[in-house]
Amino acid sequence: MQYSDRVLKTPSSFIRNILKVTDSPNVISFAGGLPNPVSFPVNQLQEAVERAISSNGAKIFQYASTTGYLPLRQYIADKYNRLNNLGLTADDILLTTGSQQALSLISQVFINKGDGIIMEEPGYLGAIQAFTMSEPTFYPVTLEEDGLNIEELQQALVKPNAKFIYTVPNFQNPTGLTYTMERRQEIYDLIKNEDIFIIEDDPYGELRFEGDHLPYIAAGKTDKSIILGSFSKTVTPGMRVGFVICKNKEFMSHMETAKQAADLHSNIFSQYTIYEYLTHNDYTSHVKKIIDLYQSQANVMLAALEEFFPENVTFTRPQGGMFIWATLNNGMSALEFFHKAMAVDVAFVPGDPFYASKTNVNTLRLNYTNATPEVIREGIQRLAKILYEVEVAETV
Amino acid sequence: MQYSDRVLKTPSSFIRNILKVTDSPNVISFAGGLPNPVSFPVNQLQEAVERAISSNGAKIFQYASTTGYLPLRQYIADKYNRLNNLGLTADDILLTTGSQQALSLISQVFINKGDGIIMEEPGYLGAIQAFTMSEPTFYPVTLEEDGLNIEELQQALVKPNAKFIYTVPNFQNPTGLTYTMERRQEIYDLIKNEDIFIIEDDPYGELRFEGDHLPYIAAGKTDKSIILGSFSKTVTPGMRVGFVICKNKEFMSHMETAKQAADLHSNIFSQYTIYEYLTHNDYTSHVKKIIDLYQSQANVMLAALEEFFPENVTFTRPQGGMFIWATLNNGMSALEFFHKAMAVDVAFVPGDPFYASKTNVNTLRLNYTNATPEVIREGIQRLAKILYEVEVAETV
Repeated sequence: MQYSDRVLKTPSSFIRNILKVTDSPNVISFAGGLPNPVSFPVNQLQEAVERAISSNGAKIFQYASTTGYLPLRQYIADKYNRLNNLGLTADDILLTTGSQQALSLISQVFINKGDGIIMEEPGYLGAIQAFTMSEPTFYPVTLEEDGLNIEELQQALVKPNAKFIYTVPNFQNPTGLTYTMERRQEIYDLIKNEDIFIIEDDPYGELRFEGDHLPYIAAGKTDKSIILGSFSKTVTPGMRVGFVICKNKEFMSHMETAKQAADLHSNIFSQYTIYEYLTHNDYTSHVKKIIDLYQSQANVMLAALEEFFPENVTFTRPQGGMFIWATLNNGMSALEFFHKAMAVDVAFVPGDPFYASKTNVNTLRLNYTNATPEVIREGIQRLAKILYEVEVAETV
Repeated sequence: MQYSDRVLKTPSSFIRNILKVTDSPNVISFAGGLPNPVSFPVNQLQEAVERAISSNGAKIFQYASTTGYLPLRQYIADKYNRLNNLGLTADDILLTTGSQQALSLISQVFINKGDGIIMEEPGYLGAIQAFTMSEPTFYPVTLEEDGLNIEELQQALVKPNAKFIYTVPNFQNPTGLTYTMERRQEIYDLIKNEDIFIIEDDPYGELRFEGDHLPYIAAGKTDKSIILGSFSKTVTPGMRVGFVICKNKEFMSHMETAKQAADLHSNIFSQYTIYEYLTHNDYTSHVKKIIDLYQSQANVMLAALEEFFPENVTFTRPQGGMFIWATLNNGMSALEFFHKAMAVDVAFVPGDPFYASKTNVNTLRLNYTNATPEVIREGIQRLAKILYEVEVAETV
């Protein structure tokens, strides 16, 4: 039996495979991308379940609409209008089974085999995986300190059948980088007259602990703008509630068809529950608690990197989110470093799976949201020791 | 902007569009396919949520494994071993976001554009929709009173690149028909040496109110057997928990990759909740309550059809499940009948969307699970009146 080309091409998640190895309690893991459990308002969600059942009864257990629970879609529209002045209605929102499903559906809706996707490099692994199932051609564009490299983007835009650009403009996964105001404007100027959509995938946007909230690249300015959002990083990932925001009616109608085919509709019980939670609690101060924690964890890791790492290792300084990105400039590959690190029970994600076009890279992702200050310092010290041993070996 | 061929080919759900029209409280609707709310054990599910939270805490709100909650997979394996003696382990079970997702993933895993799917005709609309997203060639095989037509199946099996056969062997949607023991054996004998998978989609199997439980066509006999199951018809569809059963490791590993790409994992909160419900309640007597209700509703509709309908309309007699299938032999198309019926506020689903290869058919689906006996009789009487008026008009 011959399986489909698309599934044979699609990598199973490198990270999920790493996590199976690193899941032991002895291992100090900077490999995951999990929210700290402090971000789950457990008691309030339990109360929300009770209210959702007592106010709605059997309805929340029945089949439901493909687009999602209307009051929750209206809540999301109102919130994005308030924060970003986008002029949205509930019809501009489609609820999905996590943002991952949105990535899968968008590529299904746009991509014929071989069509182009312009993609940050390094870029989000889950997006590479979701898109690969539609057999696209990837046009990678280097992600720099300030955002997508403009010259490379220009070159990519003239490629045939490029259907959309995929970006994570705030606290990107895997690099932690944030597009500057100027770069956002440059990108928009470049694409505004092109027949191409731009996805701004923004799961971490609310988790800013430094700098000012920045406007989206294209949202609110063109109907070829798609924003992806999620409750996974601020309420619960386990309930799989994400959403697509787009004012283009034709696109949204195709997305509804694709979603019907994919799973009929998302879990309606969880949509009611999250809506009840959001409308009966102080969400802003809940998010503030997560931000304060992540800021303190990021600061501890950055201080440890400065204190313990050799100077030839550079790293990003995130303004929010969950990740730091390090570059080895000592000739070692990230995979070699990973194997040495696992020998001293420290895990991270080598950069390789985040590149559509490169292997054996010298970059790696460090997550700081799931360890105490003591554990973060201990883990970074162990990694530093490996790096100094390599230097000594090379000097000798 | 050109959207993908696959989404342009895929019909948006005819039924979901009909339901928008028929959703008025004045309309007597036999159009839906919704479980009766009596099948949702609301209080027990609320207790299950409380237990799931108090026993597991934050874990049930976190990201989780792609294959699904292990104790629930083990529960399903044990249950199918008990009832069907299949020798399953938890590794043979993959939890999905409803059975609909299973249909979507299976076609993604098998189908390159143009590959064949052998499909019951009439067949389940949601499957046609899910499969179409992978751009297959459909090879329809007539579904007769006893099961798939053997001669047509033989012809379909020699078609190039036919990857799987799709069946609903028990109380099929849309026809209500059940494959006989003999036909199951004939089908198995025909395919047992072929390089082709067979899906037995069995969401209604537990809802048998007449006749004996029958063994699956192929499950337990070959590793090219796939069973699909669901908690949607006996616990709650709103939580979207379905499952794939297959002993073929290579297939299951591709399914896991496809599922990661599609939505990372299904709602874990609901998986824990359903597990808690199943292990702390008398599920068998709950299902018995649903069976008794559906049997009484089916009997009322069958009696009304016999009493009121002209003899040239034939209909199936389901042994379980949710549907009766009627065939007009009076020259009227089902669509014409539908429009006349809507004028007297009665709805059903005309047969057309259940055929991959035919239009303007004379068959229709009647659902009986969501109406009282009085309403069922009133609705069938109104339909009968239309049929007799046609006869009179033709006689004149």
